[in-house]
Amino acid sequence: QPNVTVYGVADAYFGYGEYDDNKFTGVNSGGLSGSRIGFKGSEDLGNGLKALFTLEYSLNLDRNDGIGTSSGARQQFVGLQGSFGFVGLGRQYAPGYFVNKYDTTGGSSALSPQIQLAKAAGATIDAGGGSRFNNAINYKSPSFGGLSVNAIYSFNEANQDEDRRTEDKLGVGVEYKGGPLAAGLTYQQIEGGDIDRPDDQKEWMLGGAYDFGVVKVLGSYQQVKDALGNEGNTDKIYQIGAAVPVGSGHIHAAWGKLDADAGSDHDVKSWVLAYTYSLSKRTTLYTGFLHNDNEDETNQTNLASKEIDGVTVFGEDSDNFVIGVRHTF
Amino acid sequence: QPNVTVYGVADAYFGYGEYDDNKFTGVNSGGLSGSRIGFKGSEDLGNGLKALFTLEYSLNLDRNDGIGTSSGARQQFVGLQGSFGFVGLGRQYAPGYFVNKYDTTGGSSALSPQIQLAKAAGATIDAGGGSRFNNAINYKSPSFGGLSVNAIYSFNEANQDEDRRTEDKLGVGVEYKGGPLAAGLTYQQIEGGDIDRPDDQKEWMLGGAYDFGVVKVLGSYQQVKDALGNEGNTDKIYQIGAAVPVGSGHIHAAWGKLDADAGSDHDVKSWVLAYTYSLSKRTTLYTGFLHNDNEDETNQTNLASKEIDGVTVFGEDSDNFVIGVRHTF
Amino acid sequence: QPNVTVYGVADAYFGYGEYDDNKFTGVNSGGLSGSRIGFKGSEDLGNGLKALFTLEYSLNLDRNDGIGTSSGARQQFVGLQGSFGFVGLGRQYAPGYFVNKYDTTGGSSALSPQIQLAKAAGATIDAGGGSRFNNAINYKSPSFGGLSVNAIYSFNEANQDEDRRTEDKLGVGVEYKGGPLAAGLTYQQIEGGDIDRPDDQKEWMLGGAYDFGVVKVLGSYQQVKDALGNEGNTDKIYQIGAAVPVGSGHIHAAWGKLDADAGSDHDVKSWVLAYTYSLSKRTTLYTGFLHNDNEDETNQTNLASKEIDGVTVFGEDSDNFVIGVRHTF
Repeated sequence: QPNVTVYGVADAYFGYGEYDDNKFTGVNSGGLSGSRIGFKGSEDLGNGLKALFTLEYSLNLDRNDGIGTSSGARQQFVGLQGSFGFVGLGRQYAPGYFVNKYDTTGGSSALSPQIQLAKAAGATIDAGGGSRFNNAINYKSPSFGGLSVNAIYSFNEANQDEDRRTEDKLGVGVEYKGGPLAAGLTYQQIEGGDIDRPDDQKEWMLGGAYDFGVVKVLGSYQQVKDALGNEGNTDKIYQIGAAVPVGSGHIHAAWGKLDADAGSDHDVKSWVLAYTYSLSKRTTLYTGFLHNDNEDETNQTNLASKEIDGVTVFGEDSDNFVIGVRHTF
Repeated sequence: QPNVTVYGVADAYFGYGEYDDNKFTGVNSGGLSGSRIGFKGSEDLGNGLKALFTLEYSLNLDRNDGIGTSSGARQQFVGLQGSFGFVGLGRQYAPGYFVNKYDTTGGSSALSPQIQLAKAAGATIDAGGGSRFNNAINYKSPSFGGLSVNAIYSFNEANQDEDRRTEDKLGVGVEYKGGPLAAGLTYQQIEGGDIDRPDDQKEWMLGGAYDFGVVKVLGSYQQVKDALGNEGNTDKIYQIGAAVPVGSGHIHAAWGKLDADAGSDHDVKSWVLAYTYSLSKRTTLYTGFLHNDNEDETNQTNLASKEIDGVTVFGEDSDNFVIGVRHTF
Repeated sequence: QPNVTVYGVADAYFGYGEYDDNKFTGVNSGGLSGSRIGFKGSEDLGNGLKALFTLEYSLNLDRNDGIGTSSGARQQFVGLQGSFGFVGLGRQYAPGYFVNKYDTTGGSSALSPQIQLAKAAGATIDAGGGSRFNNAINYKSPSFGGLSVNAIYSFNEANQDEDRRTEDKLGVGVEYKGGPLAAGLTYQQIEGGDIDRPDDQKEWMLGGAYDFGVVKVLGSYQQVKDALGNEGNTDKIYQIGAAVPVGSGHIHAAWGKLDADAGSDHDVKSWVLAYTYSLSKRTTLYTGFLHNDNEDETNQTNLASKEIDGVTVFGEDSDNFVIGVRHTF
């Protein structure tokens, strides 16, 4: 019995994207789930105590990159688990990462309106990569009848002087899972205190999903305060989606909106229509179309660039088509 | 039964090289085969269909480098295989990679005249690393009585405007394997269209190997058009080699020439004499001597630098001696 | 039976450090042992001969780093072992690495006075990372009644001209292990010959450890000549430590001094008090306090920075407190 399990995701797709005159055509990595390789294990220490570790790295399947070379680590931690829950040290998921439960594609970088809108708003609570914290102490409670709590504190390693909390991050999540229902309340904060971020960035999200069998309905509402240097502004993001089982596959649809405090010309709307087909539990074919509708002052794209000849373009629509395969191992 | 197999090559050698007054003495990685570590697996999906993935990274055994840190990935792809053949997405070998079949040392970076000459000519069809394409869609046919076809298209991810094909690459290979004979015709192209490469770079190679038992004879002829900015020029490379089994080892010899369109002062001649000894199927000792004969305008070296005190030297001979061990796992 | 074993160390801690007005608070990697992941294997070649390889990479558990991305490889080699001993090619430990036997915490980056003092003196013989050599040929003898010899030569790959030995390194170590006693004499040298290092840097260390059962006593004495550009200077480092078993744990203490040739205002004193508790053979909790006492011209810190507002501080004391967990797999 080896002490280590090697696991991962190999996900690649062909994509076509348009933003104004820019047209992307090519092969990318991680459309449905981020490509990764990981090494994990646990050791039984007796009395219900366990030592756990996870070392997990991002891969760009389309490029000439090493393991974690350009996109880094997803998780690197060691910790102890017992009746008290889990305590870990290292780079770890913040509670905001797990809001992928309220996204119809499970937090797909290519096919999630919530991720598009969170990026546009500078939010760290998103179903994608915004919620991985370095230098972190993480606590996860056991489940109390379906209810669990997750808290994390992330130190900004560079801080040395009296204002030592600047750019530190914290997060708290409360989740409920029971039968067809999943719901959660998440809070995350980035400490302010310097010129780039005078005030704390504060965010919260309420998310939920209910599986009716013939359709699973998912949605979330979140607020982001003082992000991207917008002092005093509180942006709102809401999205609603559905997943309908059809044979061995699912049809996915979702619609969301960034409702910007700075005015409706800072709004973004995003929607997706996608289809996933399971060749097996481990291998899924997927295709989908994601559209971002930018107002005059926004430019959330996905596949195509925001720049033409060095000039950043605003207020155009972004169209993105993908077809690919995800294999987990 | 784990889903992943960890495999690789650990190859290191002591080398001595001279080029004019430069003398290299040291330890290098990957003399006979590139050092690497890989993770691969397949899943049977039923009806003859399989999902496959390969994640394979270059290693510099002699240096303080991480996995793929400085020399990147060799292959990173996911795909499906069935009666139709194989279709893969990601960074993959182009058909030109497999011309190592026509090289007496199997495409050794330290001991292959063909690789030396392909580098000097700027060719991508070589038995070494020139034929790994990013952002690629790859198709491999099944074998029809020994005959198979391999085609790849590689997108240049940066392209966004109307000239979207610039620096895209494509390759097509047709191979035959049967009894003692292996032969193949390979074509590769890099799309032109910008200042650095106004015209398409076009290459083809015809290669073959025949195993007479007491000796295996190998050779190739290739043309390279419009490489290294030499518009209108078509360079020719030909090489012939032999491998003679002696006990548990082989004696290898090969001679090749770059016949440059720009004139005979742009020619390079290269030859090798080597000995490989198998301690087991997985572990091989090797030693060899490779000589590059540069004309007035060329400077193909291998171990020793082309520069002396910052001045690039031309027209000298390059001598390279190696002794090492390759272990596959 | 796979050809590869995946192994490693996941070690992370919470640390607090002070140096003058600088205060570090955060999570770091590798307090007791450097975090790492490795891949190793061996093949029996018959007649007592074996092929061996080790590929081992540093990990920063607290950061967004890939495998070996920022801190590189620990070891990458392939070699042969037989009745003659072991010969390896690649990046390998020099004899100086193994002086961790004479350190009460086994060469802990956070808790070893010897490592602190070796860093301050620019010595390569230390229980930490100073003794990993690139481009190396390494020989290890078999044990003759507990006595063994280890020799390494490391080429500076960049050297090309007549002064080809500049920055080459070499090391020789003689070790004895028998019953409760371990002792060793180690010599390492860096070739001089250029402006930065006109003279050879020469170092030696005598170290020993004796396990009385109720207490293990450890110590070392070393000299470093011509390090850090201090021509003609010979610095001395000595340290003595003890480890006392208490239940499932150990109390560790050590004290050491850098006695600088340049005068007592260049001295550093360092001491540690630590406790390690084994949850199992593979999982250890640890905590400790390390103090560096800098004289007017020195500034050896560990967790906190040496700079305040860009100005390097000298002559203050450095305090470092850590609490963490090490899991080996």
